[in-house]
Amino acid sequence: MRIALAQINLHVGNFGYNLDKMLEAIEAARKQHADLIVFSELSVCGYPPRDLLYSDRFLEQCMESVYQLAKACTGIVAIVGGPSRNKETGGKSIFNSAFLLYDGAIQNVYNKGLLPTYDVFNEYRYFEPATEFNTVMFNGKRIAITVCEDIWNIDGLGMYPINPPDILARQKPDLIINISASPFAWNHRPERLNILMQNASRYGVPVFSANQVGAQTDLLFDGASAVCNQKGQLVDVLPAFEEALCVYELDEVLQHPGIEPPKVPDDREKYRLMQQALVMGIRDYFRKTGIKKAILGLSGGLDSALTLVLAVEALGAENLWAVLLPGPYSSDHSVADALQLANNLGVRHSTIPINDVVKSFNKSLEPFFVDTASGIAEENIQARARAVILMGLSNKFGYMLLNTSNKSEAAVGYGTLYGDMCGGLAVIGDVYKTEVFGMAGMINERDEIIPNNTIVKPPSAELKPDQKDTDSLPPYDILDSILYRLLEKQQDPSAIIADGFDEQLVRKTARMVFMNEYKRFQSPPMLRVSPKCLGIGREMPLEAVNGKQ
Amino acid sequence: MRIALAQINLHVGNFGYNLDKMLEAIEAARKQHADLIVFSELSVCGYPPRDLLYSDRFLEQCMESVYQLAKACTGIVAIVGGPSRNKETGGKSIFNSAFLLYDGAIQNVYNKGLLPTYDVFNEYRYFEPATEFNTVMFNGKRIAITVCEDIWNIDGLGMYPINPPDILARQKPDLIINISASPFAWNHRPERLNILMQNASRYGVPVFSANQVGAQTDLLFDGASAVCNQKGQLVDVLPAFEEALCVYELDEVLQHPGIEPPKVPDDREKYRLMQQALVMGIRDYFRKTGIKKAILGLSGGLDSALTLVLAVEALGAENLWAVLLPGPYSSDHSVADALQLANNLGVRHSTIPINDVVKSFNKSLEPFFVDTASGIAEENIQARARAVILMGLSNKFGYMLLNTSNKSEAAVGYGTLYGDMCGGLAVIGDVYKTEVFGMAGMINERDEIIPNNTIVKPPSAELKPDQKDTDSLPPYDILDSILYRLLEKQQDPSAIIADGFDEQLVRKTARMVFMNEYKRFQSPPMLRVSPKCLGIGREMPLEAVNGKQ
Repeated sequence: MRIALAQINLHVGNFGYNLDKMLEAIEAARKQHADLIVFSELSVCGYPPRDLLYSDRFLEQCMESVYQLAKACTGIVAIVGGPSRNKETGGKSIFNSAFLLYDGAIQNVYNKGLLPTYDVFNEYRYFEPATEFNTVMFNGKRIAITVCEDIWNIDGLGMYPINPPDILARQKPDLIINISASPFAWNHRPERLNILMQNASRYGVPVFSANQVGAQTDLLFDGASAVCNQKGQLVDVLPAFEEALCVYELDEVLQHPGIEPPKVPDDREKYRLMQQALVMGIRDYFRKTGIKKAILGLSGGLDSALTLVLAVEALGAENLWAVLLPGPYSSDHSVADALQLANNLGVRHSTIPINDVVKSFNKSLEPFFVDTASGIAEENIQARARAVILMGLSNKFGYMLLNTSNKSEAAVGYGTLYGDMCGGLAVIGDVYKTEVFGMAGMINERDEIIPNNTIVKPPSAELKPDQKDTDSLPPYDILDSILYRLLEKQQDPSAIIADGFDEQLVRKTARMVFMNEYKRFQSPPMLRVSPKCLGIGREMPLEAVNGKQ
Repeated sequence: MRIALAQINLHVGNFGYNLDKMLEAIEAARKQHADLIVFSELSVCGYPPRDLLYSDRFLEQCMESVYQLAKACTGIVAIVGGPSRNKETGGKSIFNSAFLLYDGAIQNVYNKGLLPTYDVFNEYRYFEPATEFNTVMFNGKRIAITVCEDIWNIDGLGMYPINPPDILARQKPDLIINISASPFAWNHRPERLNILMQNASRYGVPVFSANQVGAQTDLLFDGASAVCNQKGQLVDVLPAFEEALCVYELDEVLQHPGIEPPKVPDDREKYRLMQQALVMGIRDYFRKTGIKKAILGLSGGLDSALTLVLAVEALGAENLWAVLLPGPYSSDHSVADALQLANNLGVRHSTIPINDVVKSFNKSLEPFFVDTASGIAEENIQARARAVILMGLSNKFGYMLLNTSNKSEAAVGYGTLYGDMCGGLAVIGDVYKTEVFGMAGMINERDEIIPNNTIVKPPSAELKPDQKDTDSLPPYDILDSILYRLLEKQQDPSAIIADGFDEQLVRKTARMVFMNEYKRFQSPPMLRVSPKCLGIGREMPLEAVNGKQ
């Protein structure tokens, strides 16, 4: 038996596009003599469809695609993902299903039992969980068809009281198929592959898993679909961050000696993964929104430099416009560094000084500000003047403004709302400043693409004379260590203090994170590359006093 | 037996505050010889705690409050809400529970079975659903203790496969207690009271329900806790939008002839409810964030006028600052109307023309804009110049900027991102323009508070010469009818067209709603007063092409 895994970059709600892609894959699999082709979770509509699932027309369109695909399934079997109606009274009205298609028709439907509803997932918002699980006979083989999370509670210790593969195992399947939409985080792939290996090993059957690839706004999918043999060894991993169709002979999988198991990425590999993921994220968001060109403010600092490098890789230098917006406190080296980078990358650049605009604002506000000390208000005016100019160019010429804030800044609110927090997409909003340095170092390994001065000079917002980030914040290595524990590890301040961090600093940092929820509430979508993003997957009250305590 | 319902304005995460309030209520109930006092859902921490529930320390603090409350329960029984640990392996780690406290200790814990995970709710993100339901004997009465949604699946047709009161009814309870946090929408109270009445009627027992009151950011709770007798008649409804403690003698409830059942509000009542809810929403957001003063741009148009009236009621005229920001296309009558309103309300007002700032921006952009036709880009610059000035005053003097966009604008994207879409709180973001007119009419019933000219003149953004909203949008009565069907009724365009609306207009409106998800993604929290808000409770993909079709 020959099994094809189809790893496709789907577009939520773009039924024509998705259907064409899937029909092409079926045709390609047929040419490679596949008996069975497996698509990813909710493939007919793309994942995650969110509240489009509340539309009757949307559900109909999903079923129309499933029927179209079924029609194409002669001489080949397909397993496709899509929502299906729950015909029982009581319970949510739809299931998250795998459809088994052959002989031109829907032969069977398998419903997801474990509905992830945490972090970036909210599937129980829409779907009824299945409580029955059945295998199916095909080509003399008994197949267990599962949907993503269904195989993730293997130790029974997770968030669900049942483990569907245990139930399916009673029917003695010969193989497990898993259709999934498991999003990227820099450390997630080994976890996901290990889950596949554990299932294969525990039930003594091969596992074939098709994962979605591509970005859907802030949620990134790396693909890397995989096959394991019945000993729990990894047999193959499909390419990451790109579409692929791979066909496997079941007998060869059963006899395969296994390849090396996945490792937790070291720093260099982590930065490489982040780069690939962010480039895919930019490219897909532009392609799927139909916008071709991007604009950004290039300050001479490292955040906008890295953002520009990633955007050039994603969209091509010819589609980028870098705007230098020097203000009253911009340094000469910042302008020089920004120009150097734009030239290195071959990106169009323009310079629009903000001094006159800032003066005009200050004059308008003078009657009110006259007896006050210059402070945050004056600094923010500069950042906001830049945003108005960038948005003016964006609106006039149809460029999308890229936001260049990093995760450390976003976490502690070191940024100006409606100023440098503007943009259609926060490219590095889930990348800590220390990781920004790491990625920049990797990018410069062969050639000095990012001017070295941009990397070595002390970070500064340049909104007042001789300003340094460290005037307001602890050094980034310490700040990021604390933030990582607060956010990714979800440790309470007391636990971090017990780990040896300075009590005052930890409490201050935690307070800043909580006090700035209101700013992040209005930030652009952030491309998610970590296991805990400050955008999607984090839902905090805006006026909780907990952080103040 | 005397039962007290405690309807308290809690503050999420403010344990000291919540505990003091609850201890006071216990003391007051004791003085009124209550045997039992009932608090609202998750009362020890406030609802909704969101991802604070992922913090171990937060859960400990909840339990510390429960123990403190238990200690105070001598000679009186209390039912309080809070998260409790799930001691089983497998499943989510906490339950949404009702604690039964007496003799200084936790006597029993009752867990919520139906976890609302739709619209504004995401309880399955955190909680394991209970599958066992038990009554308890107290004072010779058998009591069924339920948590909010548990009593909402009474017809068995809802989103859940079980109906907990049916299970509890096998144990023949004498009364049902329901602790709840059921948010306000202008049409929701009759639904909620009817559910209580239906439960009372079906099981032939009285129902006592304590509901949360107060605002938690965008989510508003009207209280209006209630008691029904065993015939399913309403016996009493506690005051709405304010705290209350009411004590009921069970025998009197059993013999009560019933009061008039709730009605769906007519337009006038709807506007009155919206006004009360919005005033509470402003007041609580300021109080709970610790901010005293609000600033807003007063254009002379109706949206900012209504917002100012509501804010004055919530915060007091002395805490408001209205800023007139006339620009190149502002009309004389707009300035006059704005000044008249500020004077009518006794609100401090200042005038800061934006012409110089706008000129300065235009000059900066001239080299790029030189051969282009004036359009959206130039209009947005005016709106953004205003925002920079307002935010400058906000940052300098610690005022929170109020956003004045209405729901019709927000729906179709008729507003400037980082311009008039700025603010810390969108006061009327869930109020359609036709409802804005309705509320203004009601406010002006006795005196002309809002200048009549503000109400009768054709709405205009005044961003280009002789501009009218109807240049870009259909008349608001038609637009709002379509939007109501698209949003509140979740109808597909085809269904709305079948209802007799113009096909082109419906498709264009639906497309505008979908195409502007990206703008709303960055809008401030919107006080929710309708059953379907464009802010909390709506989760749409940003690049779905579905809306374009």
